[in-house]
Amino acid sequence: MILVVSEAALELVPENISKHPAILSHARRRGKNPSEMLLDRSYHHAAMKKLQSAWKRGRPDITHITLLEVLGTPLYMRGGLKVYVHTLRDEVIRVYPGVRLPRSYERFLGLFEQLLRVGVVPPGKPTLLKVEKGGLEHLVKNVKPSKVIALTTLGKPKPLKELCEELVHLSEPMFLIGGFPQGHFERETLQAVDDAYRVYKEHLETWVVASRLVYAFELAKGLTY
Amino acid sequence: MILVVSEAALELVPENISKHPAILSHARRRGKNPSEMLLDRSYHHAAMKKLQSAWKRGRPDITHITLLEVLGTPLYMRGGLKVYVHTLRDEVIRVYPGVRLPRSYERFLGLFEQLLRVGVVPPGKPTLLKVEKGGLEHLVKNVKPSKVIALTTLGKPKPLKELCEELVHLSEPMFLIGGFPQGHFERETLQAVDDAYRVYKEHLETWVVASRLVYAFELAKGLTY
Repeated sequence: MILVVSEAALELVPENISKHPAILSHARRRGKNPSEMLLDRSYHHAAMKKLQSAWKRGRPDITHITLLEVLGTPLYMRGGLKVYVHTLRDEVIRVYPGVRLPRSYERFLGLFEQLLRVGVVPPGKPTLLKVEKGGLEHLVKNVKPSKVIALTTLGKPKPLKELCEELVHLSEPMFLIGGFPQGHFERETLQAVDDAYRVYKEHLETWVVASRLVYAFELAKGLTY
Repeated sequence: MILVVSEAALELVPENISKHPAILSHARRRGKNPSEMLLDRSYHHAAMKKLQSAWKRGRPDITHITLLEVLGTPLYMRGGLKVYVHTLRDEVIRVYPGVRLPRSYERFLGLFEQLLRVGVVPPGKPTLLKVEKGGLEHLVKNVKPSKVIALTTLGKPKPLKELCEELVHLSEPMFLIGGFPQGHFERETLQAVDDAYRVYKEHLETWVVASRLVYAFELAKGLTY
């Protein structure tokens, strides 16, 4: 299966707020240029007030924790799970097989800051993370998943277990889960989607949905290892 | 069910290394006294070389991510999951119902530093986290779980699904999962345990085991919500 953490709230500090005092003081503390830092609501809350769609932005921790969860699963470790991060700016990051992410949030930030600036990490081989050419639409065209499923509270109700049992016979289903703190998928994202399902009646954290999805998929495949 | 993140690598900086340069410089950067900070291998690696059992210690991020996972589950949100953290120093922390943990690692550190110093957070009502009197043995005597199960690679092999289906009819089973990065449960911990099982043949991250356990338990209970 393919998992896409989609519209992830992951971006470098935008130019128009890079001179805000909250950003400048944080940049000084970290010894970085403001435009080389990831936007992070924990530190830049005051600066984010002027941003459009601010409520969906500046939460790299969501991607960090969600990736730690899914990259630690037996399915990923055994090569049965491909992982991508699709950002709110429609960038697609490919997570290569066998990647082990820094557990430390500070090191995670450093790694993804380098990735979004340079396009690939590490600079040498083997490649671990790479910004792919083209956005989500291009990814779907390229990877040709047998079906693209979005998990969203606006979708049709269906328990995860049932959903995975229905999809497990497909060669390579792609699942989109939202990598943002609140709100819903944009229309552009949903255009790439075949079906949308709601697996719980209330909003759940991205990492909770991701870990359950991978486990439910393993169970549906009969993989208890 | 009751979940205990057990022997969690969570402690304040020990006195005997509190003057190490790595600790002092980090304390200065954070504006804290060394002995008021959580021991954290990401920052204190050099200082930890002199510590006994250093490989099991200084990983508060494990507790942070594991708690974020389990406190975000429907089972916890609906009152069907009680959560404790049991530390390597045999302290027992009760996580009260309805707790929402800081997503930011820095704020999580601040909260648990206060907790381990003061014994309870926040200072006013309602209580969210509290260090209970007595260690793990006392907790088990007090809570009287119908059975105490440890998940460890040294236990008997059994898939999680099967384990949960066997235990779900009990009134309140208690599960212990290790909150440390490597190694195994201490003998003192295992004395409180009725049975030990291995749910995967290799080591899995604490948060991966925790999220699967809660979901498998929900499935065994027939809770798809």
